[in-house]
Amino acid sequence: MGKRYLLAPGPTPVPSEVLLAMAAPIIHHRSPDFLPVLDSAKKGLQWLYQTKNDVLILCSTGTGGMVGSVNNFFNKGDKVLVINGGKFGERWTKICQAYGLDVEEIVVEWGYSVKPEEVENKLKKNRNIKGVFVQASETSTGVYHDIQALGSIVKKYDDTLFIVDAISALVAHDLRTDEWGIDIMVGGSQKGVMLPPGIAFVSVSDKAWAKAETSKLPKFYFNFKKERENLAKNQTNFTSPVTLIIGLNESLRMLQAEGLENVFKRHAKLADATRQAVKALGLELYPRESPSNAVTAIVAPQGIDGQAIYKNLREKYGITAAGGQDKAKGKVFRIAHLGYSDRFDIITAIAGIEMVLKGMGYPVKLGTGVAVAEELLMVSEEAK
Amino acid sequence: MGKRYLLAPGPTPVPSEVLLAMAAPIIHHRSPDFLPVLDSAKKGLQWLYQTKNDVLILCSTGTGGMVGSVNNFFNKGDKVLVINGGKFGERWTKICQAYGLDVEEIVVEWGYSVKPEEVENKLKKNRNIKGVFVQASETSTGVYHDIQALGSIVKKYDDTLFIVDAISALVAHDLRTDEWGIDIMVGGSQKGVMLPPGIAFVSVSDKAWAKAETSKLPKFYFNFKKERENLAKNQTNFTSPVTLIIGLNESLRMLQAEGLENVFKRHAKLADATRQAVKALGLELYPRESPSNAVTAIVAPQGIDGQAIYKNLREKYGITAAGGQDKAKGKVFRIAHLGYSDRFDIITAIAGIEMVLKGMGYPVKLGTGVAVAEELLMVSEEAK
Repeated sequence: MGKRYLLAPGPTPVPSEVLLAMAAPIIHHRSPDFLPVLDSAKKGLQWLYQTKNDVLILCSTGTGGMVGSVNNFFNKGDKVLVINGGKFGERWTKICQAYGLDVEEIVVEWGYSVKPEEVENKLKKNRNIKGVFVQASETSTGVYHDIQALGSIVKKYDDTLFIVDAISALVAHDLRTDEWGIDIMVGGSQKGVMLPPGIAFVSVSDKAWAKAETSKLPKFYFNFKKERENLAKNQTNFTSPVTLIIGLNESLRMLQAEGLENVFKRHAKLADATRQAVKALGLELYPRESPSNAVTAIVAPQGIDGQAIYKNLREKYGITAAGGQDKAKGKVFRIAHLGYSDRFDIITAIAGIEMVLKGMGYPVKLGTGVAVAEELLMVSEEAK
Repeated sequence: MGKRYLLAPGPTPVPSEVLLAMAAPIIHHRSPDFLPVLDSAKKGLQWLYQTKNDVLILCSTGTGGMVGSVNNFFNKGDKVLVINGGKFGERWTKICQAYGLDVEEIVVEWGYSVKPEEVENKLKKNRNIKGVFVQASETSTGVYHDIQALGSIVKKYDDTLFIVDAISALVAHDLRTDEWGIDIMVGGSQKGVMLPPGIAFVSVSDKAWAKAETSKLPKFYFNFKKERENLAKNQTNFTSPVTLIIGLNESLRMLQAEGLENVFKRHAKLADATRQAVKALGLELYPRESPSNAVTAIVAPQGIDGQAIYKNLREKYGITAAGGQDKAKGKVFRIAHLGYSDRFDIITAIAGIEMVLKGMGYPVKLGTGVAVAEELLMVSEEAK
């Protein structure tokens, strides 16, 4: 027997309760059986998103939600601003360009967070910018962008939408859709909401819906106005991914039982313990500022290949973490603490890292990082 | 307790073996664990499709596969021919138009099958037709279009692709992708392959791949060239719907154990028994010719609302069948015999119909239709 541990930033582990809920017999998506299922899911998503906006449910990966956030609200030639601080920022650019939008980028050095004033300057200079695209958590670098600050800036521009890819940040970070003025926010099932891959979520503000009226880009599969009409009737435009939506209700039930504030605190605590433990091993974090609570990107020690650390974790210890992507490949490895994640997942990760690094000849005193994590993750009030 | 029976043309029932396979712990889609899973699925799909072509696996409903069949192979203004004999034929037209194609339709009266010579005449007259779109089984009417005959016609035109929506026909009908010259064929998970909704399949011929080189329509989520590159490495372009692909392998294993020819024979037999039983009750089939083996559309008796039959089946007897769609709404009800379907599902359906119709005042001698079905579904060689 070799037990396996999934500590990657998506797909993330799915609780048995959810897997078993999804093993129930199939119900028909146009039957009355399904209406309360979708009704519950849509209300649960509004709770999770902290919004009164519609939260659409799409049968696609998160990227499908990103595509729909472009083709439903813009027109060919529209000027948009993309904050590109990693592989997923780059994806916004590619999607916008695929639909003929005129993309201006703020290129943020990998490992850094965008400076909100840079966005403000761009918007001031160019009154024609129709949308600002950003990641909440840029998974490739492990950096969190300051969504609240960005929202308060974009909000001032009546003609500019604020579009957030929260695929890996949702659940890990407090993201106040309505309060912070997020017009469109994309989530995915295989991350914080503890589901298998297969559905995406997109919240849409009234400001964005007004824009949808004038968008002429081709849309059929990702047709948000049609999805909205269907959602009002507790339906989806095409066949609903019934199994995943049933699983979603179970996940949301678990998150609701924990309470939103506690969910965010848990992620903050696990992320902090991971960072402190890693630093205690003499390792460096890849983010130079504003680290994400979803995933910790760690710089591989001098002379050690980041991909080899990731491979050793998997092959020798059964731990699936993540390597680096694109320009960070070889330089970093990444540990997620996202969704169905608790203190002993962090202990496992740190112990695995210690054993792998020692095995690769890096000078590490076994247990050093684990001790730091234990200290930070101890339950404060023990039963006497 | 009220046991429930799902006899709708999708989603269809999922075998417990598949549901349980899908309840396994999540594996990471970029890890070596996943490569043999996708490898097995892609080979299994080639077996099912009777093809050497690539069969792409998409995270979407079947409609996503239809959209990808348009935006990857054509250009704005391209002339295409759509065979529109029902709600799903109409969908081809809408998708093509959403992408700015110039659609010419052959409108086939609902309940009828397209005359292949009509297609031949159109192609002869207009050498500019870049694609012919059709459904194999038009789910809204329960009609099968003669894919073999159509394929042999379109094959003669080097510049014309033959695109088949086989979403509901796959598994129910023998569809010989390579032998019959089907360039693009779309399938969906929640039909014959006995899976929950969430993935689509699309086979692509070399003739179609050549066309993909010149297509300039916007594509990002449904980017088939990228999917092909990934498929060669046993990957998908975006996060793989790992759970559904694991389930797919289990479904394919079950279908392979039965044997392709037996699978088609079973569907033909169940469909035939349904039709004969229904006729024995004095009911009329909605198809005037070429009925589908996936679903039987039945005309509601004079003075009885088809939707009421469907509702009574569900509410009084726990049987989820289907009503009519669009112009057939109220006129018909539909019983599927697709995927995880066997003789006693037909007996259940017919018994349910008998009881509902008698309850609604239609003169029916209980057991008449069931007797006909039993006769046709008896095992021929009983143990002595």
